[in-house]
Amino acid sequence: MNAIATIVESPTRKKRRNGGRSARIAQRTIQVASPNVIKRMIPVYDLLNEEALLKLESHADWILQEIGIEFHGDAEALALFRNAGASVRGSRVRFDRGHARALCSTAPSNFQMYGRSPDSTITLGGAHVVLMPSYGSPFVSDLDKGRRYATIEDFRNFVKLTHASPYLSHSGGTVCEPVDLPVNKRHLDMVYAHLRHSTKPFMGSVTAPERAEDSIAMARLVFGAAFLDNHCVIQGNINVNSPLTYDETMTGALKTYARSGQSVVISPFILGGAMGPVTQPALLAQSHAEALAGIALSQLVRKGAPVVYGNFLTTMDLKTGAPTFGTPEANLASLAIGQLCRRLNLPLRTGGNLTASKVSDAQAMQESTASMMAGLLAGSNFIFHAAGWLEGGLTMGYEKFIMDLDQCGAMLRMVGGLDITKEALAADAYREAGPGGNYLGSAHTLRNFETANYRSELSDTSSFEQWTESGSKTHEQRANTRWKETLAACEDPPLDPSIDEALLDFIARKKSETQDQWH
Amino acid sequence: MNAIATIVESPTRKKRRNGGRSARIAQRTIQVASPNVIKRMIPVYDLLNEEALLKLESHADWILQEIGIEFHGDAEALALFRNAGASVRGSRVRFDRGHARALCSTAPSNFQMYGRSPDSTITLGGAHVVLMPSYGSPFVSDLDKGRRYATIEDFRNFVKLTHASPYLSHSGGTVCEPVDLPVNKRHLDMVYAHLRHSTKPFMGSVTAPERAEDSIAMARLVFGAAFLDNHCVIQGNINVNSPLTYDETMTGALKTYARSGQSVVISPFILGGAMGPVTQPALLAQSHAEALAGIALSQLVRKGAPVVYGNFLTTMDLKTGAPTFGTPEANLASLAIGQLCRRLNLPLRTGGNLTASKVSDAQAMQESTASMMAGLLAGSNFIFHAAGWLEGGLTMGYEKFIMDLDQCGAMLRMVGGLDITKEALAADAYREAGPGGNYLGSAHTLRNFETANYRSELSDTSSFEQWTESGSKTHEQRANTRWKETLAACEDPPLDPSIDEALLDFIARKKSETQDQWH
Repeated sequence: MNAIATIVESPTRKKRRNGGRSARIAQRTIQVASPNVIKRMIPVYDLLNEEALLKLESHADWILQEIGIEFHGDAEALALFRNAGASVRGSRVRFDRGHARALCSTAPSNFQMYGRSPDSTITLGGAHVVLMPSYGSPFVSDLDKGRRYATIEDFRNFVKLTHASPYLSHSGGTVCEPVDLPVNKRHLDMVYAHLRHSTKPFMGSVTAPERAEDSIAMARLVFGAAFLDNHCVIQGNINVNSPLTYDETMTGALKTYARSGQSVVISPFILGGAMGPVTQPALLAQSHAEALAGIALSQLVRKGAPVVYGNFLTTMDLKTGAPTFGTPEANLASLAIGQLCRRLNLPLRTGGNLTASKVSDAQAMQESTASMMAGLLAGSNFIFHAAGWLEGGLTMGYEKFIMDLDQCGAMLRMVGGLDITKEALAADAYREAGPGGNYLGSAHTLRNFETANYRSELSDTSSFEQWTESGSKTHEQRANTRWKETLAACEDPPLDPSIDEALLDFIARKKSETQDQWH
Repeated sequence: MNAIATIVESPTRKKRRNGGRSARIAQRTIQVASPNVIKRMIPVYDLLNEEALLKLESHADWILQEIGIEFHGDAEALALFRNAGASVRGSRVRFDRGHARALCSTAPSNFQMYGRSPDSTITLGGAHVVLMPSYGSPFVSDLDKGRRYATIEDFRNFVKLTHASPYLSHSGGTVCEPVDLPVNKRHLDMVYAHLRHSTKPFMGSVTAPERAEDSIAMARLVFGAAFLDNHCVIQGNINVNSPLTYDETMTGALKTYARSGQSVVISPFILGGAMGPVTQPALLAQSHAEALAGIALSQLVRKGAPVVYGNFLTTMDLKTGAPTFGTPEANLASLAIGQLCRRLNLPLRTGGNLTASKVSDAQAMQESTASMMAGLLAGSNFIFHAAGWLEGGLTMGYEKFIMDLDQCGAMLRMVGGLDITKEALAADAYREAGPGGNYLGSAHTLRNFETANYRSELSDTSSFEQWTESGSKTHEQRANTRWKETLAACEDPPLDPSIDEALLDFIARKKSETQDQWH
């Protein structure tokens, strides 16, 4: 659990005190030893047998060969695929059986992402589990002010709350959409917030290739150009335009991150019945095919580029057309997609505390818990939307965020598993207390009670009388108190003033170069 | 799924129209074909490896050999153990390694329980999954009237709601404690409620051997003596007086049910840190040892008596001493105990929608969902407390009951798994809609949308605007409306008036024989 990654100034810095700031930044480097580790110590759950998995893989191959994937408006991507031997007709790319999979084979099975503090390095892949907050909500809500459009202040609040949590080791990307800022410039403030209020790894913009470039440029100011060239410090989440389509915005961002040696997450997003058939086996094969095509592109751009096998498979209420979350079909799909990903030996992304509920009520946590548990048992390495998600992702909830953190703590305890040690078997306790005894005062209990159980700071376990005396508060009401306390106690991690200045200069320059766009 | 179990009158009945009612009842019989089936189609989850399981089994053997189990006040039980070769000193029974396990080997790996209608037969064991409502709460609560002591009216309400649910195939036992009735007579009204308002299999009294006898006698009036002798129609839940102790009340009830060929559930009840050590591995070994001893006794009373391997392992908040539920440690314990049970090849009981929350809020469903999912992945055959549980079992909640039913529906869908058929792979949908298309109108979607997804009748998936227009209701508020509608629509299943009369006569006679006791 100890980490010794430190941002250190180059020794030449003092000598060149009057040298250019950019020269100093270029020489800045990071020393890294063992990363911050949260690992799954329990087995993955294998839902499907070999025969079923082969059928799904074969069907994905059929989709890639017979139907193909559209790559719109990106001649470079089409050329890369053509040169690699795929069939390209118009914007449709088709792959012989096994070809897309073979192209993916240069992607690393796991990789590290570096934050700007010694303890913030994470590993994506293997048995590692990384949780990050929700992504992309245009709205926020809390019990006091209700639901409203998100602002950059909300964005900063969630970055701070994430930084303060021991359970979220990734700061996320668009933790909410700051709609009070111009569309073409808000990425600058978002990336700055991640870099200023947190030390954890984060995601940059993917809404245009130049915004992806800006995001990487800002990371370069913090990490140094040399370090960034050889280490992953920023990430882009590439949402596939399912069904079976990538547009030039997404491939543009994909290429930008991959070319810089930075990570992409390839995330097919499929509502069964709309962007794909209504049956889960079809969606699994489709999601697999879409992911293979995107991962293949990342490897054609730069062999060995760090990439995460993503997915977002969920269901629809077919009466109303509304998306649904944490449903049994969606959870089964998470379990199966985990198996497909393992056979590629790539890091797996799944969704986290998902719900369609508008408020942080019983429905919200019923759906969230099932979804989260399925993701972890699927062997997920990287759980998106682990905190804050409400209303199918339209809203980032302050109370939900705090509830979800508590859930994350419990779930990470669960994936820690059971260790059958001599001490845990407690022979001495039985000798001491025997049948009919009370074990509360036994020496074994005294030795172990501090560490034996995950201790929720939010759940109420008091008696009905105590609970009534404390105001009969619901989980949501307790979370309301807690997020305010937690936020008030947040402190920004230190940031070298020269780096901060460089970031602010960069932002000011970029903002002055173009007109504001609001749509 | 079709069942042809029918209560039929013996053909001799018409001929003997003037014969005694008891004679007619004795000749009543039941014809049974295939039972009502809900099966787990997904694999069990194996948390622990072989080495860890051997350690736990060995530690259970050590407990049985070195510490032993107390059997208080039951000379018959002690004699049975002594005759079987166990070491009995005072009330302490010790078993050589493997002996208790060997004594359990005559218990059936699965058995059927018969209800009084053709479609109510259930199987306990194998891949079958049977859900039943909560058991034992002295309080009930609903949003309108709050928390109060339970009455026989509440009891009847929950029996009716259970009968109406397709997800609960067992009517339960003391679904709540009717504290408005005398302690020594309320079992008569409870058993009558199960028999009158439901056709599903149920549990009788265990609070005294004579109350167990009364329960069985009432079942005999409905099923006929000959049928009952050879078929399981009633069940007793034997809560072990953990740690490592059985009192004469529990062994008395155990023997009564087992002797009649009726089923018992052997349920160690251990709060880690109080009735056992604070570490889960110790609790697992202890629970296993306690279960083995009780199951062994059932087999010494009657070889082949149908028995369920139960457990109730949970955690405590060690600051306050309050029991906690749905915690990661408790859920890991459920997964591990499932493995220990499978190695005995016995039906497994686990807990269901458990929570410490006082109300049907986010905490309630977070804890319940994790607990329920762990139980099902553990391979549970028989889930107690699948509906209604609040406040660590002290309260049966009307809204919680309805929420839990929805959860049960979703979970049973999950255990149905994914079937990778040609139709589910939907090749024609891809040919029809291709990349970028909308699959909503495809022929494949139209063929499959009715059956593709579990459809919650309680969760809200509407838009924020629709939800607001509908009154911004929480899950709990929707459940409040729903339980009232459901209860109002409940109809008692038909019951032969002569049987009803016999039951009422029996109850009247029993009630007149003794004074009311209130404590």
